[in-house]
Amino acid sequence: MSSASSVIRVGLLGCGTVGGGVVQLLRAKATYLEARLGAPIEIASVLVRDPGKERVPELDRKKLTSNPDDVLGDASIDVVVEVMGGLEPARTLVTRALDAGRQVVTANKMLLAHHGAELLERAAARGVDLAFEGAVGGGIPVIRVLRDSLASDTIESISGIVNGTSNYVLTRMQKEGLSFDEVVKAAQALGYAEADPTLDVGGGDAAHKLAVLAMLAFGARLDGVKVPTEGIDTLEPLDHVFADRFGFVVKQLAVARDRGAAIELRVHPALIAKDAPLANINGVLNAIALEGRALGPCLLSGRGAGDMPTAVSVVADVVDVANARRSGASGRMTRAMKLTPRALAPMDDVETRYYFRFSVFDRPGVLAKITGALGERGVSIEQMVQQGRGTGDVPVDVVILTHESREASVQAALAAIAREGFVARPPRMIRVHG
Amino acid sequence: MSSASSVIRVGLLGCGTVGGGVVQLLRAKATYLEARLGAPIEIASVLVRDPGKERVPELDRKKLTSNPDDVLGDASIDVVVEVMGGLEPARTLVTRALDAGRQVVTANKMLLAHHGAELLERAAARGVDLAFEGAVGGGIPVIRVLRDSLASDTIESISGIVNGTSNYVLTRMQKEGLSFDEVVKAAQALGYAEADPTLDVGGGDAAHKLAVLAMLAFGARLDGVKVPTEGIDTLEPLDHVFADRFGFVVKQLAVARDRGAAIELRVHPALIAKDAPLANINGVLNAIALEGRALGPCLLSGRGAGDMPTAVSVVADVVDVANARRSGASGRMTRAMKLTPRALAPMDDVETRYYFRFSVFDRPGVLAKITGALGERGVSIEQMVQQGRGTGDVPVDVVILTHESREASVQAALAAIAREGFVARPPRMIRVHG
Repeated sequence: MSSASSVIRVGLLGCGTVGGGVVQLLRAKATYLEARLGAPIEIASVLVRDPGKERVPELDRKKLTSNPDDVLGDASIDVVVEVMGGLEPARTLVTRALDAGRQVVTANKMLLAHHGAELLERAAARGVDLAFEGAVGGGIPVIRVLRDSLASDTIESISGIVNGTSNYVLTRMQKEGLSFDEVVKAAQALGYAEADPTLDVGGGDAAHKLAVLAMLAFGARLDGVKVPTEGIDTLEPLDHVFADRFGFVVKQLAVARDRGAAIELRVHPALIAKDAPLANINGVLNAIALEGRALGPCLLSGRGAGDMPTAVSVVADVVDVANARRSGASGRMTRAMKLTPRALAPMDDVETRYYFRFSVFDRPGVLAKITGALGERGVSIEQMVQQGRGTGDVPVDVVILTHESREASVQAALAAIAREGFVARPPRMIRVHG
Repeated sequence: MSSASSVIRVGLLGCGTVGGGVVQLLRAKATYLEARLGAPIEIASVLVRDPGKERVPELDRKKLTSNPDDVLGDASIDVVVEVMGGLEPARTLVTRALDAGRQVVTANKMLLAHHGAELLERAAARGVDLAFEGAVGGGIPVIRVLRDSLASDTIESISGIVNGTSNYVLTRMQKEGLSFDEVVKAAQALGYAEADPTLDVGGGDAAHKLAVLAMLAFGARLDGVKVPTEGIDTLEPLDHVFADRFGFVVKQLAVARDRGAAIELRVHPALIAKDAPLANINGVLNAIALEGRALGPCLLSGRGAGDMPTAVSVVADVVDVANARRSGASGRMTRAMKLTPRALAPMDDVETRYYFRFSVFDRPGVLAKITGALGERGVSIEQMVQQGRGTGDVPVDVVILTHESREASVQAALAAIAREGFVARPPRMIRVHG
């Protein structure tokens, strides 16, 4: 405990664009931070790959090192900030920092999705804190809102747009009628999508973030959990057209729900009513909607990625853990989280409304067979639209919106319909949110 | 400093519905709170008007008192929570609690709008904290987001829907084509509007909240500041119809902007583009949009009032100030806010787009006179619609949307047009947001 020391010493693991942003903000807000913490913050050392490289903002060369021991072995360091990303060496270095009794801040969602519970429990056992606001939602303060809510409320569900690339792609598909491939190419050219966009548009990145949010909201041990995940890569412009006709927009949604006996986690495209706040979170913006028992609904939105928004979150965490360190309260925030293993509800048990699009040859009795296959399994139809009339070999689209139904029944009905000869291609299904 | 004590003792000033919610949440989350704080929270005493009254949740009769000294004079109390509302006796009691070295939590927006700077400075001088999350936006954690953002960022502007009654009225006017009076009556019947709704629909309540937000965001001494305020009571169904035609909805907005030399504060109806997130905050929901230099845009939305959401905010504050108290860091959070006097920018200097609706007799040359009066003063027209053709004595509506213009020029042009003989009634003006 260094509450008597007159300076708060911070060690950085990594100094890319987020790390540079952290350095910049710590300098810009030095006066406020000193008043808030009762001591100035000093950057003690920075682990980088190449200490010889020019950096913006400029750092004292003597503080740069390529040897992790210079940061982790320095007992005078109060707070270690990990902004390298990726699983290794981040996991090893964060573990070492916790073991050495440092307060740790990380912005690494992949690390937390895979080893969050393990690291939080290690931190709790060592009597230190692990803070991770920057790991989910960039500058959106969702982690601290969840953490503060836990002090007074019970979180029942989370629904989020947590991948900016996917949201950018869907927004342009919807507003400009473009195809998935066209928009992804444009997004790559603009730097909004990676050369290999799979982790974003396939839903993997959103699943990581969802696992971190659910861990915190529900106190659940979810390390490496397999979140049922569907990407946006199978959506077609026509789905946006029909969604619009029914009063919806399509968004890529991450959903977590505490169902008591089990936790429901899922990432997939969803139809959202046009006038719902989540439906109007466009472009690269992210949003997270919480539902608290006492709080009711709460929506947080902002830039879900980007160096400076993430740096804002990292610095807010540095303040929290430095404060705890200086006042001898290290570890309390983390210990209070107490994680327990929780079962994951199977997708089969999900109940929601559904949108189906069947591409069928327009023969007599087709609609009766479709509605029959649904009705037999208790899937009841709310609205149905047939787009034009087919001319022999050209299939037509039949779009159906259901009442609330059980996923298992829906999947069985769709499989039965897919086997019919009048079906030109596999039926498409999108879940309806809310 | 009671960091060695084994219990955190809380005194309540008032125990109405919010206070009751606080008691309920403190009990429901006792285990988490003890882990988080390192000590259990105990309700030591509760100031009420009538200690004999039945209460839900039940409280030990011995803890109820009608004598403020029983709470304020008890040196063993760590945290005083004021949930009485109103200016007096709240101001006197909060002042006494701060002077006695207690950590104080309040949910009283009126008190803060009038005496916030005075009370915060008194708290800072006494080395204690004054926390007030519950005062603005009910359960929306805007105060802590602003406070945390200050650690790392510079807030540039705030735009909020902060009065649930006004938003409820506008939402129903817009969606159902009803008149202001009709909806207010319905809202009163449902308990969403007071018997005298002036403070809500006139904008006064929103102005109080805006003053509190701006004080915190800009570090400005704004006690009793006169915020330029317009209510929603002059809006007509036709304004919603035209807004819709131009792609907008009408919302009652509170705007604060740091313009460097001065702070701009205003509360008034505003047109917001339909696909902006703020435009889709409906019914009694509130929302606050922040713009941070590093953070970019950030939107927070939820129930802006109500006992349980407000109680959630109060308990979150109790955790913060109790934490500080236990760790000998009382007063740091408040001291870091350091308020300075800031000038208020005159409304004349506001620059924005405008919507005008003129009710005119359809005579030759009328449009030329209107556009001339605007053009002369540099108010340039973006769109113009004339609704139908007048028949002699029946006036027609001419609606104009301007490019960005200066308020002083707009007011001068409107005054000139109002003096013309062809004008059937005073021109209507609504500012356009964003």
